[in-house]
This record gives sequence, C-alpha cells and structure tokens, in this order.
Amino acid sequence: MTERRHDREFVRTFFTSPTAVEGEDDSAKMLRRAAGLRGMQAPDVWVPDNEDATAPSMRDEGAENIVKVISEHGAEFPGEIHPRMVWHRDSPETRYQGFQHMLAITDPERGAVEHIDGFVIPEVGGIDDWKKADEFFTIVENEHGLDEGSLAMSVIIESGEAELAMGDLRDEMGKPTNNLERLFLLVDGEVDYTKDMRAMTPTGELPAWPELRHNTSRGASAAGCIAVDGPYDDIRDVEGYHERMTENQAKGMLGIWSLTPGQVVEANTSPLPPKTGSWLLDADGEEVELASEDGVEAYDGDRLSLEPTDGGYELRVGGDARELTDDELREELLGLTSYVPSMDDIVDSMEEFEAAKEAGRGAIAMTQSATLRIGGTEIDIAKDRMWDEATYQAAMTPISLFQDVYENRPDQHEELEDRYGAGVVERAMEVGL
Amino acid sequence: MTERRHDREFVRTFFTSPTAVEGEDDSAKMLRRAAGLRGMQAPDVWVPDNEDATAPSMRDEGAENIVKVISEHGAEFPGEIHPRMVWHRDSPETRYQGFQHMLAITDPERGAVEHIDGFVIPEVGGIDDWKKADEFFTIVENEHGLDEGSLAMSVIIESGEAELAMGDLRDEMGKPTNNLERLFLLVDGEVDYTKDMRAMTPTGELPAWPELRHNTSRGASAAGCIAVDGPYDDIRDVEGYHERMTENQAKGMLGIWSLTPGQVVEANTSPLPPKTGSWLLDADGEEVELASEDGVEAYDGDRLSLEPTDGGYELRVGGDARELTDDELREELLGLTSYVPSMDDIVDSMEEFEAAKEAGRGAIAMTQSATLRIGGTEIDIAKDRMWDEATYQAAMTPISLFQDVYENRPDQHEELEDRYGAGVVERAMEVGL
Amino acid sequence: MTERRHDREFVRTFFTSPTAVEGEDDSAKMLRRAAGLRGMQAPDVWVPDNEDATAPSMRDEGAENIVKVISEHGAEFPGEIHPRMVWHRDSPETRYQGFQHMLAITDPERGAVEHIDGFVIPEVGGIDDWKKADEFFTIVENEHGLDEGSLAMSVIIESGEAELAMGDLRDEMGKPTNNLERLFLLVDGEVDYTKDMRAMTPTGELPAWPELRHNTSRGASAAGCIAVDGPYDDIRDVEGYHERMTENQAKGMLGIWSLTPGQVVEANTSPLPPKTGSWLLDADGEEVELASEDGVEAYDGDRLSLEPTDGGYELRVGGDARELTDDELREELLGLTSYVPSMDDIVDSMEEFEAAKEAGRGAIAMTQSATLRIGGTEIDIAKDRMWDEATYQAAMTPISLFQDVYENRPDQHEELEDRYGAGVVERAMEVGL
Repeated sequence: MTERRHDREFVRTFFTSPTAVEGEDDSAKMLRRAAGLRGMQAPDVWVPDNEDATAPSMRDEGAENIVKVISEHGAEFPGEIHPRMVWHRDSPETRYQGFQHMLAITDPERGAVEHIDGFVIPEVGGIDDWKKADEFFTIVENEHGLDEGSLAMSVIIESGEAELAMGDLRDEMGKPTNNLERLFLLVDGEVDYTKDMRAMTPTGELPAWPELRHNTSRGASAAGCIAVDGPYDDIRDVEGYHERMTENQAKGMLGIWSLTPGQVVEANTSPLPPKTGSWLLDADGEEVELASEDGVEAYDGDRLSLEPTDGGYELRVGGDARELTDDELREELLGLTSYVPSMDDIVDSMEEFEAAKEAGRGAIAMTQSATLRIGGTEIDIAKDRMWDEATYQAAMTPISLFQDVYENRPDQHEELEDRYGAGVVERAMEVGL
Repeated sequence: MTERRHDREFVRTFFTSPTAVEGEDDSAKMLRRAAGLRGMQAPDVWVPDNEDATAPSMRDEGAENIVKVISEHGAEFPGEIHPRMVWHRDSPETRYQGFQHMLAITDPERGAVEHIDGFVIPEVGGIDDWKKADEFFTIVENEHGLDEGSLAMSVIIESGEAELAMGDLRDEMGKPTNNLERLFLLVDGEVDYTKDMRAMTPTGELPAWPELRHNTSRGASAAGCIAVDGPYDDIRDVEGYHERMTENQAKGMLGIWSLTPGQVVEANTSPLPPKTGSWLLDADGEEVELASEDGVEAYDGDRLSLEPTDGGYELRVGGDARELTDDELREELLGLTSYVPSMDDIVDSMEEFEAAKEAGRGAIAMTQSATLRIGGTEIDIAKDRMWDEATYQAAMTPISLFQDVYENRPDQHEELEDRYGAGVVERAMEVGL
Repeated sequence: MTERRHDREFVRTFFTSPTAVEGEDDSAKMLRRAAGLRGMQAPDVWVPDNEDATAPSMRDEGAENIVKVISEHGAEFPGEIHPRMVWHRDSPETRYQGFQHMLAITDPERGAVEHIDGFVIPEVGGIDDWKKADEFFTIVENEHGLDEGSLAMSVIIESGEAELAMGDLRDEMGKPTNNLERLFLLVDGEVDYTKDMRAMTPTGELPAWPELRHNTSRGASAAGCIAVDGPYDDIRDVEGYHERMTENQAKGMLGIWSLTPGQVVEANTSPLPPKTGSWLLDADGEEVELASEDGVEAYDGDRLSLEPTDGGYELRVGGDARELTDDELREELLGLTSYVPSMDDIVDSMEEFEAAKEAGRGAIAMTQSATLRIGGTEIDIAKDRMWDEATYQAAMTPISLFQDVYENRPDQHEELEDRYGAGVVERAMEVGL
C-alpha cells in the first residue's frame, strides 16, 4: 500500500466550528465550546473554520481567536487540529489573505502552532493551484523555524479541476520543487462542487455525486491520503446520515464531515464493527434486519411467508408461492440471508484463520448458524464462508481502523470498552500484528 | 469559475439537420426548414450536419447547401450556427475532407461565414487528434483573414480516447502552439461510443453511460466549456426524454441533442424552473407529484393512507401501519415530502436572502407551507430550509441559465413572458447581479 | 478503432488453476486437469496461477510444473496460455522472484514457451511499475532469442494507482524506451482492490465498483486492450454470475474470470446472442421474460392485468387501472415491451440492412411482431426499429465476437452449431465482412 506519512491512518470525523461569531460577548464562544469536546463527541480532526462558517468581516478576528483558543486548550484536545483558511483558485487576493492568516497563526511565540497539525485549504483548482498553497506552507515553516513538511495540508475538492488534480498527485508528490507529501485529507465539498459543475435538481437537493466520491477515494488511495465526504446538511436525519456513511465505506471513503457533536458521535461510531451481529433478509427486494428473540432470528413482515405443508414448505415471496422440500428451502434461504458480523465475530474469525495459517492451511471454512422464524415457522440454517488470505486481509480494514482509533484516542477507551467489552477490545488490538 | 470565452454561457439544445437529402427537388430542403425555426422551436445551437445525418455521397453537395442556406437565412436565425464536418481519428482521408469543406464554407466572399459561429468535429480521438482539428481551424481563419480563434470548435465524444482527452484539456489550452481556447461544446455521442467501447445489451438498447456523462460534465467545468448529451432516439417517448434531462441536470450537463423541433421545445424548456411549484411525496419508495386542488395538495393513490384516530392518526405506508400523534405525523410527513420551487419562489427566496445579506445576516430560514390531503384526511405542514451564501449560489444556476437565455434569445421573450408573467421575468433578470 | 495487436480480439474467459498443490501425489494435478479441457469448458485464456491460487512455499515447484505440463499438453490446448507470475508494486523481492520464474519458464530448450502466449502480472502500481514488468519481458525475450514484444503482458488492476495508470497507457505505448504494445488483458481484481481502497461493507460482501469497471473498459478501448472482470466467488450462484456479466457487457467489458469449468461454460456462452429471441415486459417496474407458448407471448403474473371492455380494454398496472382503446393499448404495450433478438434475428437484420445499403438506402425500418397474452386476453403488436449505419455497426459487436470465437476455437464448432444450427453459423460468419 502507498506509504502513509501522518500519525493518523484513518480519520472518521472532520468537525468544523466558526472561528468568530458576531454579536456574542465572546466571539470565540463556538471555538471554546468545541475545544472542550471529549470522547465520542470529539472528532478525529477538528477544523476551526475561518472560511465559510465565519462571516467574511469576522475572519481577521477569527484568526486571532484560533491562536487564543488553541494556545490555551490545544494541548488537551484529544483529536488533531487543522484550521481552515480562506483560499480561492480564482482570487489572488483571497489566497494572499489565507497566507497571511497562516503566517500569523503559526508564529511560535504565540503558543498555538505546537498544537496545530496542519491547515485545510478550500476551493483549490488544478494541481498548480495546490502547489501555490504548498509553497505558502513551506514559506510559513521556513519563516517560523518549523521543519519543512511538518504542517499537514488538507484540501476541499469542490471543483471539476480539483477532482481532476487528484489523478495527478502521485506524479507530482516527491518532486524536489514541492512538499506535496504534506497532503493529508482529501475532503469533498459537494455544495460548492454542485455550483462549480452548474448542476441542478428540481427540489434544490444536492446530487449524490457517486463518481466524485469514487475519484476522491481512489485519489487518496493512490497518494497515501485519507478520503473524507462533505457535510450532510439535514442534521435531524440520522438514518440518512448513516446510509450515506455506509455507501461511502463501500467506496473506501471512511471519513465524513460533521456539523454538530451529535453527528460526530454518529460518524465516530459508524465505521466501527457493531457490538452484536445480525441477520439480514432480502424480503422481496427490500433488505430487512431480523429481530433477534431468544436466539431466534424473526421476520414478522408480510412480504414473505413460510408455511409447513405435507412433505415440505410453502414459501411465498411477494406474489410468488413455491412448494419446497426441506433442503430446497434451506438453499433458498441461504440465498436470501446474509450475516453482519460483530467485532467479536470478526476477531474470532481472524484468530481462527491465523491459527490455521500457522498450521500450514491456506483456506478454511467459517460457519455461521441461525434459527430463522418466518411468520410462525422455524428453520435452522448454516452459512459457510471460505476464508483465505484475501478474505483475511479485507476483514483487516475495520480492525486496522479500530486499532488506529484505540491508539490515538485514549479519551475514547472507556466508551469503546463499554461498547465491546474489555476482552474483545484487547483481542482486537492483537490480531493482524 | 473557469473563464468562459463564448457568447453563450449555457446551451440547452443542439439540433441537427441533414445538409443534403437525395431524391428531393431541393436537396437543401431540411436545411431551409430548420433555418426558419423561431422561438421555443429554435435551438440554442443549430447544427447543419454534414456527417452522419447526410449520406456520404451527398456531402460535397451538403457543404454547398450550407453556404447557400446560411448566407441567405443565417442573419435571421435566432440561435448560433455550428455546422458539423466529417472527421475521424483513424482516417486522414476523412480529416482532409473535413478540412476542405471548412475551407470552402468559410470563404468570406460567399457570405455564410459571418453567420457561422463555429464547427462541430465528430469522432475525435486523444488530445493530439483534437490539436489536428484545431490546427485546421487556425489555417482556415488565416487563409480567410478571420481572427485566430474566432471560430468555435465543438467536439463529439464518442470514443474512450476522447473521454480521456477531456481530462487533459486544462493543461493543453493556452499553450502557444494551439488555439484550443476555441473549444465550446463537449457533446456525448453514445451510439458510436457504445460501438467504440464494444458494449452490448440484450435488446440492443443503448447503455446509460453515467460515468461518461459525469466525465463530460467535469471536463466542461474544468475547461470552461459546455456539456451536451447525445441524441435520444425514441422521439415519441417525451417522458423518457425529460427523465434523461433531469438526470443530466443533476450531473451539470444542461444541454442535450434534439432530433426534431418537438424535442427542441422540450429541451429548451426542461432546464428552466417551472411556472408553478409542486409538492412531491415519497409514497412507499415511489415519488409522486401531489395534485394541487383549491390550495390543498392531494394524494389519492393506495400506497399510503392516513386515518384520524382517538388522539392521533394512523399512517399506513405499504404494509406498515403506525399510530402517530399530531407532532409525530408532521415530522414524518416532512421527511416524506419535498417541494419543487417555481421560478417565482426561487426569485422570492433570492431577493429575501439578498435583503438579509444587505442587513448583515448570513443565513435565514425560508418556510414553505402546505395543506396535505392523504385519502380524505387533511393536515398542515411547514418546511423550513436554511439559506446561506452557498444555498444562494447554488440556486443561482437556473437563474443564470434563464438570464443567459433571455439575453441571447429575444425570439423567446414572448413565450417566456407567457410562461412566467412579465413581472416574474423582470425580477428574475435583476437578482444576483 | 484503436489497433489491436493480438490474435484474439475478444476474450470471454480467464480461467485460473493452481500450479502446485501440496499433499497430492502429483502436485501438478490441477494443471493437468485444466490442460485437458476442451470445447465450451475450455477458456479463451487459461492462466496457470503461480500467485494467489498457489501457496507461497509451492511457487518454485509451481513454475516447474508450468514447464512440465505446458511442454507436454500445451500444443493441444485450444485456448491461449498466460501463466500468472508473482509481482508487487511495493516489493522488489517479489518482483525479482517473478522475473526469475519467467526467465526459467521461457527457456526454449524446455519446450514450454512455444505454447505460452504471454504472462499475467498482478498487483501492478502506477505506469512506471508497469514499465518495470515490461522491461523484464524484454530481457527475457532477448535472453532466449524470442522476438521483442512477442510475449503478451496482461495485468491485474487491484489498486487505485493501477486504475489511474490505465488513463496514461495511450501516451506511454509506442515510446522507444518500452514495449508496452505487448499489453493484452486489463483484468480487474476486486478483492485486493477493495483492500487497497480500504473499503468495507457490513456483511463483508465485495462492493460492486461500477466506476472501476467503467474505467477498465475505457482504458482497454483507448489502448487496444481487452477488459476482463474479476472472479465471482459464489460459484453456486449461476444467476448472479449472469447478471454480473450482463452488467459488464453494457460497459464494454466482455470477459470475466472463471473459477471452475462450470463458470467457464457460463462465461463462454453469456456474450453470445441467444439461440431464440424473447419478449420482455416491464411489469410495474419489474422486467419479466414472457413465456412463448404456441407463438403467443404470455404473461401470467399478477402485477399486470388486461380485460376487454365495451369499446376497448382495461389495463391494470400495479394499483392503477386505465380504460384504453385498441390503439392506445397497443401504444402502451409497445412502451412496456422490448425484444431480445436471437442470433438468427441479428443476422437477418444485418443482411437486410446490407442489401438496403447496396441499393442506396441509408436507413430502413425493421419490424418485430408478436401476439401478447396478458391474463387471458390476446393482442397483436408490431415494433418498428429504424436501422441506420450506426445501428448496424452497434449490432456488429456480438457478431464480431462470434466470428472471433469461431475462427479461434475450432474445438467449439460443434457446440456452436448445435446451439444455432449450421445455417445460422454460416451466415453469421459472412455478415459484416
């Protein structure tokens, strides 16, 4: 895998706070509140946002607030800190303002920079525009006696140009004339991307942009960066936020923007394996999670029914009823069900595979059994899955993420142990090493 | 946003006409008929098609017909005129024929070139092939004393190579050795693209090629060009044509090919905001437009039902019935409904936001209220949406398109005023300036 | 179309066999068994797999087995032979091991290389990594007195870097410093790609990666290579395998990996036109193949019903019932039905179009008629489709594939003639030439 050059190998959450709010006694109020977040409410990456979240007239004050709050509270903050500066591919004035803010914020005499991990640059264009930003980082580092490349650079992908630039990163990183190895997060910004692409929908809802998210994830994979999805505006729609994260995870985009501490909790939790396993049933085209009742996995809806008959069963799916023997029914149900493994299950399987490998076996069958109840009728099924090296490696992704979280976020240990139990946590920290 | 270098910033319609039809008294009959189109029947870009729409044996005559018809009727034609020449990445003979036709058509003595805005080049390959075409434009301009770069070049993307070339445009435009800044439209040609990709479907229907359309839209965004989708063959399927356009608009591809004046009307209208707003209901997975009856938005289908009960309501969605209180029902219905704003609504919101911004406020809530009737039961809902600068900018896309149309197409003023009313049109021309 | 430089223009099947199995009397048993496959069970490309299918400790023996089995049975094997070597973009040790195996296997004195068409290189990275592999091929050819470029190189795309590299191929092939024109197959490897992208799904199921498959197909199209999809693990799920292949074919990816001779049969057959045509009906959103009974195409489900009424018909689709006249019903049914042509139908249409073209006509209407029966009610419909040069060219893809198969796989002649009849086969070999 492409070398990763930063402390965190995974970032689940990217949480922005306005740097200066007008009309408050303390314009840094939101920053102070965010600086106090701990545990699952605290993001992996906290972004004091001196761009869109802060009014243009307040941004100089915002830069000052960043210095004040971070120098005071930065040492205790459990995540990384990456303030967002102003920048625009089409405006030298904005770019110069962003540079000046960076220069001011990182003055070592002021005590903030030692807690700052990097900066976020929005509205980047093609790769040459990324280089302009990188050059300002280098000058800032040089002026302040910091190591070249020590400040990470994250970018917001919110133009077609920037999307294309992600395809050039590998070729450009490592050239002697830049320090682009400082690149850390590639973050989609779908609102401005939609504007840049001149896209529109009847209701004004954002398009889903699946290709952009794929390309961002691929760009991150190819350049050793981390892909993060943009904000999910409807903060009351927790289910929608989870669906979006599940979709993103299947693309390799494991991080997402969070707008509230509530969203941070959801997004910190979503990529972690569940505490308990569960069975899914394809009920005539709709995927349903079965209710686990006293060791039985039950479906009580009316899209599917199952009745015993003489010599077999009648299985009805939607309008289609079929007579099946015992074996045929089991075969059919194996096709209709799938199992979502818990953390415990994953660790079990990995340990079992590691032992088998030790013993010289390259592939083993793992079995998952259950008693299903559809309507009132029960039937036992057992699902086999072959595990080989590739299965093992793929299962490693959520475990590596967990290990990265556990190592870097001691403030979440208690909640993680509450969730999984100390024994599972301990074993999860041992597998795959 | 990347600089746009052409008169039109938006192109809704790309309408092709055969240049010479065999067996007619007047082989230019189709050209003459198209040249007479006005108003919503007239496309933004008219393409006398000397390639696929015209038999190979008729193309020399077709080039002559282009000169004759455009010199006579071009001055009055309300849209731009971009004839399509022959070209093929794999055939120097075809490329040379296309060059000779361009040279002949643009002879200033013949009176057509002053009405011709550019040419369309089909079947381009990689970027070096685009440069060959560009070079012929430059030679043509030089031979005839036209300004370098004054003839726009549009291309048909109908090969994998051409799709890849769109990723290189930004890097290649502006080099001293070419005039690729003349690029105007990037038009997908799905029939030949399907052949080039060697794709096939059981029924022979064209694949939907969502990635190609994304990449074309992105290429246009990154290079300051305009993305246009290819022909929709089933000219009787008006609903399908509209669905395709709605899909395209969510990708930022706001233009589409039209094969008949009827399709031109549909495609000129589709990206414009509707005259009246409407409510959509997610009826158990199917999106339904509610019927507006005396100020009430009514759903009469059987996928959803609503009944008052003691102390609340029973809402049934598909097979699931739930008891809900008044507040729970409103919350649920807010999640199931969405509003499609009219032009008037959009202009209202933009004006309101502009006033709020003037007064120093960065975000305001806009409320949309309605009385819903499901079955016989009525309930009032009110949907809030936060508007900030980004929402405002995104809402600007359809308004900018409208303004571009209104400025460039005086022949459509009457129809636009009939559609929206003169007051709304006037206000729409003022917002966002 | 981009020049294709290999004997096969189409590859339907890519079948891997372990090269050395531990604990067997004859560790080459699986190779010997595969070498004996003939007819539809034999793949277009056979891949003795000295990488993932073979335990690391057995790979030196595996390389020896390749030599033994291919020198003995290679001459009779009906498909091409492309062994897979070890390789990894991040491991010089693995790359050197792969080189040594290639060098040993291709020693002309050992009699295998004359039957070997090329090698498969897994786990490639960016284009510079592809060039390292290519260089080893060149050295191997030079050492053994083989023509430069005579060994084909196929790669497995299983990293974001390799996906991006496919966009650079056209620019890199043909440079004097490499022999990348040897590139033959671009094969997706979704298991390791998922790992490299760090993607995850709740059940551990592989993501569908539609963008990767598009980009592979496009890369193949732009560089004159052939796109092949990765393994479909659930070998009992024949229906799922077919759905995947149908999806792939709509992307221009006509080949797929096969893990068993049973999958080879399915994958060799899938891209070939069907023996008999069939009608599809859109039954309230679900596509159903109609049962052909005595020349009538019958729908017996309950998602749609049709009843004669006074003066017309009642057509019910899902919950919606409508009164339609005879003409309206026909129009409606034309929109709901589509026809899947047989090989015979395709050849007929192509011959008819060729005759029309000969007679100077550029477009003709082809009519497909049927009697539909919905519930008990029958009605005749006739579907017109305009054929022009583009339709003809697009229809050519499955025919070209058939011709390529027929020319290169004499061992499948009998099965193909059994399937279509000798007359249809003969005519299919004549059209389009």
